[in-house]
Amino acid sequence: MNDFNIAILGCGTVGGGVAKIVLEMADDLNVRAGKRVTLKKILELKPAEAINRFQIPANYFCGGGKALSKEEAGQYIKEILDDQDIDLVVETIGGSNDFIENLAISVCHAGKHLVTANKALLAERGTSIFEAAKINNVSIGYEAAVCGAIPVIKTIKESFTGDRIESISGIMNGTSNYILTMMQREKMGFAEALKLAQENGYAEADPSLDINGGDAGHKLIILIKLAFGLDVSKDELSITGIEGIDKSDIEFATEIDSKIKLICFAEKTNGKVYATVCPMMVKNSNFLAEVSGATNAVRFVNTYSGLHILVGAGAGSSETASSIVADIVFAASHAKNNHEDRHAHVDVEITDALDYKFPYIITFETADIPGVTGIATTSIGKQGINIDTVSHNRHKTDRAIFSIATMPCTLNQIHAAIAGIKEIRPDMLLAEPKIIPILY
Amino acid sequence: MNDFNIAILGCGTVGGGVAKIVLEMADDLNVRAGKRVTLKKILELKPAEAINRFQIPANYFCGGGKALSKEEAGQYIKEILDDQDIDLVVETIGGSNDFIENLAISVCHAGKHLVTANKALLAERGTSIFEAAKINNVSIGYEAAVCGAIPVIKTIKESFTGDRIESISGIMNGTSNYILTMMQREKMGFAEALKLAQENGYAEADPSLDINGGDAGHKLIILIKLAFGLDVSKDELSITGIEGIDKSDIEFATEIDSKIKLICFAEKTNGKVYATVCPMMVKNSNFLAEVSGATNAVRFVNTYSGLHILVGAGAGSSETASSIVADIVFAASHAKNNHEDRHAHVDVEITDALDYKFPYIITFETADIPGVTGIATTSIGKQGINIDTVSHNRHKTDRAIFSIATMPCTLNQIHAAIAGIKEIRPDMLLAEPKIIPILY
Repeated sequence: MNDFNIAILGCGTVGGGVAKIVLEMADDLNVRAGKRVTLKKILELKPAEAINRFQIPANYFCGGGKALSKEEAGQYIKEILDDQDIDLVVETIGGSNDFIENLAISVCHAGKHLVTANKALLAERGTSIFEAAKINNVSIGYEAAVCGAIPVIKTIKESFTGDRIESISGIMNGTSNYILTMMQREKMGFAEALKLAQENGYAEADPSLDINGGDAGHKLIILIKLAFGLDVSKDELSITGIEGIDKSDIEFATEIDSKIKLICFAEKTNGKVYATVCPMMVKNSNFLAEVSGATNAVRFVNTYSGLHILVGAGAGSSETASSIVADIVFAASHAKNNHEDRHAHVDVEITDALDYKFPYIITFETADIPGVTGIATTSIGKQGINIDTVSHNRHKTDRAIFSIATMPCTLNQIHAAIAGIKEIRPDMLLAEPKIIPILY
Repeated sequence: MNDFNIAILGCGTVGGGVAKIVLEMADDLNVRAGKRVTLKKILELKPAEAINRFQIPANYFCGGGKALSKEEAGQYIKEILDDQDIDLVVETIGGSNDFIENLAISVCHAGKHLVTANKALLAERGTSIFEAAKINNVSIGYEAAVCGAIPVIKTIKESFTGDRIESISGIMNGTSNYILTMMQREKMGFAEALKLAQENGYAEADPSLDINGGDAGHKLIILIKLAFGLDVSKDELSITGIEGIDKSDIEFATEIDSKIKLICFAEKTNGKVYATVCPMMVKNSNFLAEVSGATNAVRFVNTYSGLHILVGAGAGSSETASSIVADIVFAASHAKNNHEDRHAHVDVEITDALDYKFPYIITFETADIPGVTGIATTSIGKQGINIDTVSHNRHKTDRAIFSIATMPCTLNQIHAAIAGIKEIRPDMLLAEPKIIPILY
């Protein structure tokens, strides 16, 4: 049996989980890979914590378990890249910067397979890295980069190959979903739910990327590239976080048999891809409404096979690590497997977010004067938007709050309708109306 | 670009769908497979219907589109097996008999990959076929054999390779799920719901295998082999169909916040696999309770990555065909991929169904005499079974019907408790008590 030697760069929550599984499952992995999968080296600046937390013997670490300076680490990385015996490098350092990009490219140029959980890196700097892998005929495994334990990458690359993916919608950020779930179930405000998420380890001290949609955006960019063959930058993606969601939105969602979820959405029609990350009113009849807490779920609609849903743990040490280990086995088993272009399409482009049709909920906060509903509905009608329902007026002391559910229309139409209201009655709107897509 | 030539044997609902997708997606498949995927021949005794239904040009058919005698078909099969240019054979004839088994083995011996949707064949006669594939170093693709479009096979073979599967539970028969859904939603009786399923094309004229659990059993046997490396015969599997479920069971399920579902269940603990196919009381908190109509769903619990759920279309022409086409692409892309043994375990054996612990609902139909609850609960307690709840008495005119929910216990304990009741009060039980596991 041949050896298949791996090195792990970065032994934190995920890297440590990988080392643990590789050591614990050694016999199984050999059978599954058809090769002796051997952990050769771990590089970590501060190994003490990993040794303690994951019970990894110190001799696996470069330097024998002692803390390393950056210079020492750089030297060890060079040794790993030069080591002809190492077949695959796991990058679990994280971050999206020149250093990590160059490191990933160097791994490929050294003729080694790369496995990474680094969604920011692949979303922001993936092009150069996939290019390097292609030139050197090595593979990049990144199952762990999107939705942790859910095998969404291999499902697209290896299972949806007899089909065309038409749309993707998913809950891909556990932190924001936990916060929204607490707001809905426990009737908490946003700040209170965020604090609870931090206390329970579901949110980082700096939760910005989780709550502003940035992390979910990274994942959607990776899936769009894979499913539709389209390179999209974060700037081209319309991204709205959950910071603007308040108790009143959640209450209204309950009222209309829905739940507010941060949804990653991408659809390809007529050579154009529409993609957005934003809070949506998900009807309870849609399974995504049932996905609560830190769980992730991805929903596909395919041309031939119809609806698919994948549900699983979106994060966690051993959960994410298990996806990385599966990528190691896959690289060891299948000689050639860089299939990024499998779902490539010719002449596909990203569509203007303002031109895509969705049904929407528009929530107005207005001065409490008679006639506001008439002005709003008339202005909406003038833009050719059909109205589905108008909610009852949720009066506050000195203002009115009401929502209008539309039939599918574009954001351009809605913005024009709002401009129309402002023109007719400049003092009517007390705040910019909140616009949330409805997902049936 | 190399050619990858395929032949399709049997052009009915599924085979015709395969031909249609391969022809429609030719350009995409070439990119995905890295080879020119070419449909070379279709063998079908009566091609007229397929030509009409799937718009397949007649020249693809052996014999040019005319109906074939069995002798002619046998001659064409020989030609296909002898054709050195054919790389892969799709078997969509169906049936589990000597002819199909020999055909599948002959395909392997001819050095061709085999792709099949034939669950009965693989469940009942898989050993000889997988053996032939191994000897000849060809692969068997059978994604379509279990849960139609759901990529459950590749998920186990290629994605759960960094983990250990602990349990599988799923709804794997759309027909029975459709019937149970109609009984629950529309308050139909079993016969009425079955008739509706037949009228709407969800059930065959002879629905035996669907409603007696046989079809679901075939699928579970295949998954047990793949996930736990264990060969189980249908006789070793405890299989109960849905024929015994009546309105009163459905009503009681609603009352206790549950739905009755035909569940395929397998769990491995301490080297033993417990497996059963039977109707279970699925608590509404379990996602499987939400899976309605002809949809299929499979739920895994893994050691490192926790809970996974896969949902999708369990049947249908293009849905099942898309899984077959994915298998074609996989065989074309990955040189060596017969990974049946990936999850093999040493010394694993099937456990006695009577010794496995589940919480159960036991429903008693008794003479309407005082003291029956006391006799039942006392006899149950004597067997060391803890009782969770006792339902109120659903009186019928001359009899009592009530259910007892137990804490986890074995069927052996329950059978002993029932024997105890019969001994104490021989005239009490008007029917054999109904025993249904509870799935939380």
